[in-house]
Amino acid sequence: MPIKSLVRTIPNHPKPGIMFRDITTLLKDPVGFRITIQELVSRYLDWGIQKVVGIESRGFILAAPLAYAIGAGFVPIRKPGKLPADTIGHDYELEYGSDRVEIHTDAIAPSERVLLVDDLIATGGTALASVELIDQLGGQTVECAFVISLPDLGGVKLLQERGLDCHVLAEFEGD
Amino acid sequence: MPIKSLVRTIPNHPKPGIMFRDITTLLKDPVGFRITIQELVSRYLDWGIQKVVGIESRGFILAAPLAYAIGAGFVPIRKPGKLPADTIGHDYELEYGSDRVEIHTDAIAPSERVLLVDDLIATGGTALASVELIDQLGGQTVECAFVISLPDLGGVKLLQERGLDCHVLAEFEGD
Repeated sequence: MPIKSLVRTIPNHPKPGIMFRDITTLLKDPVGFRITIQELVSRYLDWGIQKVVGIESRGFILAAPLAYAIGAGFVPIRKPGKLPADTIGHDYELEYGSDRVEIHTDAIAPSERVLLVDDLIATGGTALASVELIDQLGGQTVECAFVISLPDLGGVKLLQERGLDCHVLAEFEGD
Repeated sequence: MPIKSLVRTIPNHPKPGIMFRDITTLLKDPVGFRITIQELVSRYLDWGIQKVVGIESRGFILAAPLAYAIGAGFVPIRKPGKLPADTIGHDYELEYGSDRVEIHTDAIAPSERVLLVDDLIATGGTALASVELIDQLGGQTVECAFVISLPDLGGVKLLQERGLDCHVLAEFEGD
C-alpha cells in the first residue's frame, strides 16, 4: 500500500521532538491521492451516508472528494468565527489551554447518517468535540475516518471507548 | 442552473454593508454539490491538468474533488506558517493592510499544467498572488476557476488584464 510511503515525515516540527506527518506529498501525487480517496469510497459507497463532515482545514481535502464520490453533502466543522450563519460550538482541552470547533446549526438534519473525516488523529480531542457537535444536531455518526493515526497518542482508543467506530488508512507508531 | 439559488446570502457579514455569499448551503446539498463539481469536471477532464491548486480553506472543498475526478494531484496554497516543509510566499495588498499566501517549493514541477481553484473571487488579490507563486515554481496556470464571482469588485477583470483565463459558475452583481 503506497499511502504510508507517500507521507513525508518532518522531524522537530512544529516543535522539538515532534515527528510531523505531512500529507501534502501524498495529495500532490495523482495516483496516491486517487488511491487514498478510492479506499474510502469503496468502504463507504453503500452505507447510506447523507453528510460527510470534514474538519478544518486538511480534513476538507479528504472529506470533500469522498462526499462527491458517494453522493453525499459536504459539511465543514471550523475554528471559531469562521462560519457565517448560526452555529453551535464545543470547547475542548488541549495539553496547554483549550480550543473550540463550530458547525452551522442547519448543517445536519436529525437522524441523518454522518461520516466524520479528518486527515490525522492524534489525541482525538478535535474528533471527539466534532462528534459532540454532530450529536447535538441529532445526526448519527456512523464512523470516523482518518488517513493517519498516531496510536501512541490514544485518539482511536478514546473514540472507541465512547462507542465510536474508527477507520484508519495508515498508522505511524513511536510518535 | 441551481448553483446560484443554493448559495445563501448573509447581509452585513462580516461587517455592515457586505452581502456575504455563503456556499455551505450549496455544499451540504448532495445534488447541488455534485452538480457544482461535475460542471468543473466536464470542463477540465481533457485539459491534461497535472495539479489542481486550492486556496485555503474553502478553495480546498472544490479543488480536491476536482483533482480526484480528473486524475490530477492536489496542492494547497495556505496562509503563512501553515505548511510544514520549505515554502515560498507572496505578499499582497488588501484594502487595509496586507496578506500573504504560501506554497511548498516541491508542490509543482516546472512546466506542469496547473488549474487554480477558489470558491469566490472578489478583488482578485489572493488569486493573483497565488498565480505568482505557481509562476515562481515554473508551473503553467492554464485557467482560474471560481464558483462565485463578484464582478463589481473587478477580480476577474484584473486577472484577465494579466493574461489569465477565468471560468466562473455564478455571478452576483451589486456587491
